Formats: sequence, C-alpha cells, structure tokens
Amino acid sequence: MQKKNFAVILSGCGHQDGAEIHEATLTLWAIHKNGGEFQCYAPDIKQQHVLNHITGQEMNEQRNVLIESARIARGKIASLATFAPESADALVIPGGFGAAKNLSSYAFDGAKCTVNSDVAAAIKAMHAAGKPIGALCIAPVILAKVLGNVTLTIGQDPTTADNLAAMGAKHQPTLHGEIAVDQQHKIVTTPCYMLNSRVDQIADGADHLIQAMMAMMA
Amino acid sequence: MQKKNFAVILSGCGHQDGAEIHEATLTLWAIHKNGGEFQCYAPDIKQQHVLNHITGQEMNEQRNVLIESARIARGKIASLATFAPESADALVIPGGFGAAKNLSSYAFDGAKCTVNSDVAAAIKAMHAAGKPIGALCIAPVILAKVLGNVTLTIGQDPTTADNLAAMGAKHQPTLHGEIAVDQQHKIVTTPCYMLNSRVDQIADGADHLIQAMMAMMA
Repeated sequence: MQKKNFAVILSGCGHQDGAEIHEATLTLWAIHKNGGEFQCYAPDIKQQHVLNHITGQEMNEQRNVLIESARIARGKIASLATFAPESADALVIPGGFGAAKNLSSYAFDGAKCTVNSDVAAAIKAMHAAGKPIGALCIAPVILAKVLGNVTLTIGQDPTTADNLAAMGAKHQPTLHGEIAVDQQHKIVTTPCYMLNSRVDQIADGADHLIQAMMAMMA
Repeated sequence: MQKKNFAVILSGCGHQDGAEIHEATLTLWAIHKNGGEFQCYAPDIKQQHVLNHITGQEMNEQRNVLIESARIARGKIASLATFAPESADALVIPGGFGAAKNLSSYAFDGAKCTVNSDVAAAIKAMHAAGKPIGALCIAPVILAKVLGNVTLTIGQDPTTADNLAAMGAKHQPTLHGEIAVDQQHKIVTTPCYMLNSRVDQIADGADHLIQAMMAMMA
C-alpha cells in the first residue's frame, strides 16, 4: 500500500514568533512512526517580528517564514504557494505563535482575524476533497476561521474557547495528550502547549492526532 | 526518588549552523519519557555563521548561540558559563553542525580542532565526578577531543571514524537507533543523522541513549 503523504504547514522556527519546535518535530516523528511520509510547506513571507526567546523582547531584524521553517524541515520544504492538494492525503498545522502571527492575525485580532490566503486555500481544498486535517495547540483557531462550524479543541483556555465559538466553531475541552475528533468534517485537534506540558505529553498528543487521521484514511 | 537531572548543551537552532532540531527535541522528549528532568545550556557566543537552510548559502547576519538555542528550550536556558556540575546528574550534547562549528572547531579543523572552554570544562567536570555523558550524531567528536581514550560511535562514516582515532578514541560502528556504550567511562553515543534517518529512528536512538544513561545512575 502507498504510504500516506502528509502536508505539514510550518510558520517559522520558535514558539514565540514561529512554529513551536517540539510540536512540529513531534508531528514529523508521529507521521514517520505511524508509517506515513511528509512534505513541509511554509508561506514565503516575512515573519511578523523576531523575538528573543529568553527575554521575549523584539529583536531589530527581519526573518522569512519559509527560510526559518526550513530549519525544522532540514531544508526539505516548499513554498506554500506551490502546494497542490492532489499531492497530499492529509494536512497538519503544528502550533506556536507563528500560527497566530504569520499564518493568521489571530494573536492581534482574535475572532476578527484574517488568514494568509495560501493557508486558507490549502485548508479549503483539502476539506473540499474530504481529506483529513489536523491542527495542534493554537492552530485550530485557523480552522475555525476558515471552516466555521467544526468541532475543535484548544485545551482549557476560556478566552480562546470563546473566540472559537465567535468564529462559529464548537469547543471540546481536552487535557494532556487528548484529541478532539470531528468525524463528520475529518478534523483532529490536540492542545499541546496550550496546556503546561512535558515534552512526552506533546508527543502523546501528536501521536494520537496522527493515528486518528490515519484511521480516517484507512 | 529524586528525578535525575540532565544538563543538555545546545549549539544554536538548525542543523547546518546550530543544534539539530530533531535530535535536540527528541533528547528532551526521551529525558521526560524516561522520568528525568532537564536544564538546557548554551555558550553565550556568536554563531560561526548563519546559513539559509534551503540553499545552504551564508546569510549576511549574525546570531547568538544562546539566544537561538532558547528557541528549542522554550526560553528555559542558561549560559553554559554558569553551569555547576554538582547541579546535574548527567550531561547530553545533541548533534548538528553547531556542535562542530560553535561548540568546537571540528568542522573546520578535523582532529586538530579546539573545543569551547566552557564545553570542555563541563565535560571534564562531569567525567571526573563519574557522571554519565551522552552525545548524538557528530557531537561525539567533542568527547574524543576532550577525553581522548573513550569508545564512541559516529555511525559508519570512515573519515569521521579516522578522526576519532586520531584524537585517541576508539570507534564502534552503529546503525539506526543503536548506541555505543563505554561502561568504564560512562559514555553513551548514537549516530542519529550521521546516517540518513527517518525521524522515528532519531527518536529510537535518543531513547536508547537516555535509557542507557539512566541505567548508569540506577
């Protein structure tokens, strides 16, 4: 049987201004562990900003989301503008503030956020094709904005849950390593660092998410 | 029983000019998975250079090893100059070219390389205290330079193995997920991306390495 091919959308490299590194790495690990393959993508755009991850302060420099994401992907990455939905069996978006700053404006605009047009197009195309979509941590807010009436989890945070509802989605609270499964819309989400987690709990969440997506393709 | 505390030395963020992100993340995962705790450290120095991880070309900018390493450590990191050997039960050094460019000059000088003085001091102090030391991928070359007559693995590469021998170490060839254990000197090494590996194979190597180090502390 052909291995299932996951498209993974990264949003930089580092949880404060890009993709959360543990979530992204453990998503790739879970895909390989469960017999899949992956191709990473990122938008070829400037990061919203660059933050010193020790102090949280903005640094006076500019970085590109695609080029920084390549650090996680070990160079094997393509511009999201080139994404062909027919090339992928499933789509996954790891978390980190990059999802809320570079892939969307959620960190600044909450429920009124906009979503990068290539990100929105990828989600809509995969959803229309009946292919599973997964999102970790804060990334489910993007699915709420693009798809509206779907069931998602962002863990336990009441403000984020309220924002999901304002965007038309239904929130399902979860704890460490748990997933929310919307069978009708083939969407799987897991809270990861939306909860104060150990690294092995992030792995559990990513593993459960990929397993549930694999089951949707069986 | 008190949880075992692993000091982890990072060397930046990205395998071409810093710490290999999968190896570093999966080291932290393996420590948590096996019931340990970690504290990350990195030298507070400029990176040797900054490489675009898509093209491999040098970028016209400067980055700091400690600040970039904080992306992997989610901000919980200290300058290696502050490392107190009595605070740690074990020491681990993930790979990536950062180990050979920032922690040492191995990438440029081979067997004649020098090692950052804080890195060398940490290794010597932990070794003198009889505490286990682990190294992944290319990082074992640092142990060869600092400790000399120890048994290590860097996988299968004959040039690197020759350089280990020139530094006084003994090379033990290994394949995916395997470890080399020097019981006498309490040193555990694993090849990771010194072989062409899947991400789950990196996890296997890191997990086996941490388990072997845990057994040395039992």
